[in-house]
Amino acid sequence: MISLTSLANKLFSAESVAVIMHIRPDGDALGSSLALAAALEKSGVKTEVFCADPVPEKFGFLKNVSRVKTDFFGEYTYLVACDCADVSRMGALGEIFVKSKPNFNIDHHVSNTHFARHNYVMDKASNCENVYALINEAGADIDEEIANLLATGVVTDTGGFAHKNVTAETLETASALVKLGADLNAITYNCFKKQTKARAALFARVMSKIRYFADDAFAVATVAKKDLEETDAKADETEGFIDFVMGIDCVKVGACVMETGENKYKISFRSKGTDVNAVAGVFGGGGHVLASGCQIFGEYEEVIDKIVCAVKRFIEE
Amino acid sequence: MISLTSLANKLFSAESVAVIMHIRPDGDALGSSLALAAALEKSGVKTEVFCADPVPEKFGFLKNVSRVKTDFFGEYTYLVACDCADVSRMGALGEIFVKSKPNFNIDHHVSNTHFARHNYVMDKASNCENVYALINEAGADIDEEIANLLATGVVTDTGGFAHKNVTAETLETASALVKLGADLNAITYNCFKKQTKARAALFARVMSKIRYFADDAFAVATVAKKDLEETDAKADETEGFIDFVMGIDCVKVGACVMETGENKYKISFRSKGTDVNAVAGVFGGGGHVLASGCQIFGEYEEVIDKIVCAVKRFIEE
Repeated sequence: MISLTSLANKLFSAESVAVIMHIRPDGDALGSSLALAAALEKSGVKTEVFCADPVPEKFGFLKNVSRVKTDFFGEYTYLVACDCADVSRMGALGEIFVKSKPNFNIDHHVSNTHFARHNYVMDKASNCENVYALINEAGADIDEEIANLLATGVVTDTGGFAHKNVTAETLETASALVKLGADLNAITYNCFKKQTKARAALFARVMSKIRYFADDAFAVATVAKKDLEETDAKADETEGFIDFVMGIDCVKVGACVMETGENKYKISFRSKGTDVNAVAGVFGGGGHVLASGCQIFGEYEEVIDKIVCAVKRFIEE
Repeated sequence: MISLTSLANKLFSAESVAVIMHIRPDGDALGSSLALAAALEKSGVKTEVFCADPVPEKFGFLKNVSRVKTDFFGEYTYLVACDCADVSRMGALGEIFVKSKPNFNIDHHVSNTHFARHNYVMDKASNCENVYALINEAGADIDEEIANLLATGVVTDTGGFAHKNVTAETLETASALVKLGADLNAITYNCFKKQTKARAALFARVMSKIRYFADDAFAVATVAKKDLEETDAKADETEGFIDFVMGIDCVKVGACVMETGENKYKISFRSKGTDVNAVAGVFGGGGHVLASGCQIFGEYEEVIDKIVCAVKRFIEE
């Protein structure tokens, strides 16, 4: 693994750098990539930021978010993968990345495959903490814009300092970023609380139909296509729905069932201890012990029967 | 105002101390009072903790919360008011407090009336930050229990580090508390996310009936007695309902209308800028510019007409 000093020296003395973040970009991918780009630009390094997928509307509040391009262009001294555990996370841009030999990988996932020539992988709550350390190491200035970008990754990847990944260092970094001008109130509002009227209507409708099984230990929230149509909400506005279900005290396992097509359902499982990786595995899916997913084809009630049956097996074990 | 050093010297060398927190105790009142009591006890000071109101069930997860007594007893070297802006905040225990002359006031509200003989009032996001400084000043040990109690006040009074009151120092304190064993994940779950099945049902029902007025700038969520009865939820489980409404992007003013009796409604207003203190004032209520409340008597639809009319006047101004 490359040292932080060496990484800082190379990147901040480059002529030009292209930063590539992962597909379906989240607050940490955007925050760490845009912050790195802004710091490099301020240090005189020509920089572009790429993502194979378009940026979700909700991140429109981030400064200079419009500079993220989906189509790769130009020649760069270095390519940097940001917040990507492996090459496939870059989507179509992964091919371009592997072809460019002087490439770097800055990431915080323990599962990182060290796919680049130079890898800087540190297990932190967010990749923004790594980029914060990098910018500091380079002795570059962190202005209000960069502080807000970095804080966005810290806030979103920790669920607002609520996930188990928060360390004393995470909070120290957040403290430093607030001192540099980061507005946690605005970030939290934009990332977690802000919603459209349509999303609020969809949420209420879905939650009013929560179904309970296995003596209330298993709860299922269903988002039917009809619910999306009748509330005018978009499928990507269901983010956070499962959190409400998991907050219910009796619930040990929760599922969000999304109707994605005719007799086609995408299921996200969450758990407070039960191995839902195994549950999803029954249907050819998988993920982590406490969060997993799968796809099931069939009539809605049959699909529910199947997942209830599978969950019961593992809850009881 | 008494200095921190002097405060620490007096309290930690006392024979006995009674700590009184404010009525309708919240996470900061409980956290700061119980943490102070635990630190004093560990330093050999006999301590009791009092609150005129019983502790809400949701705080049952706090260690030694059962030591909070509603009926005052015993004789103490000192009485300490904790997290109380004025004497009335102690409810019935305020009378006992004023009669005891060697008394102290440790608080973080700028509006504090300095009602005690010795006042230590510092404007912080939470009173737990003041108690943290006090325990440190006394050189007393902060164990895991105390760290969790203090972190509970920091987390709840900042809405999980999301309110505008969060400073770099708040986050530094949180960082130190995590290092000392505080579990932010558990605190956040217990204080903000955990809910009963009944509360989840009430929430979904109320939010599915949100009414919009003034071109969607004013949204009203109504909790009718029938809603409570039919979902088996309790009135105090409506905490946080208004936050969901205020997250809706088009909403400038939100109201939560609670049916508290026959033709009797308690109304809480929240705003993103409009002066809802003035709105509540129309009905003899009040509060702050961005958060206020009032009570209105009448038929439900008439009450709605009245508040819509009042809100429109101030939104337009």
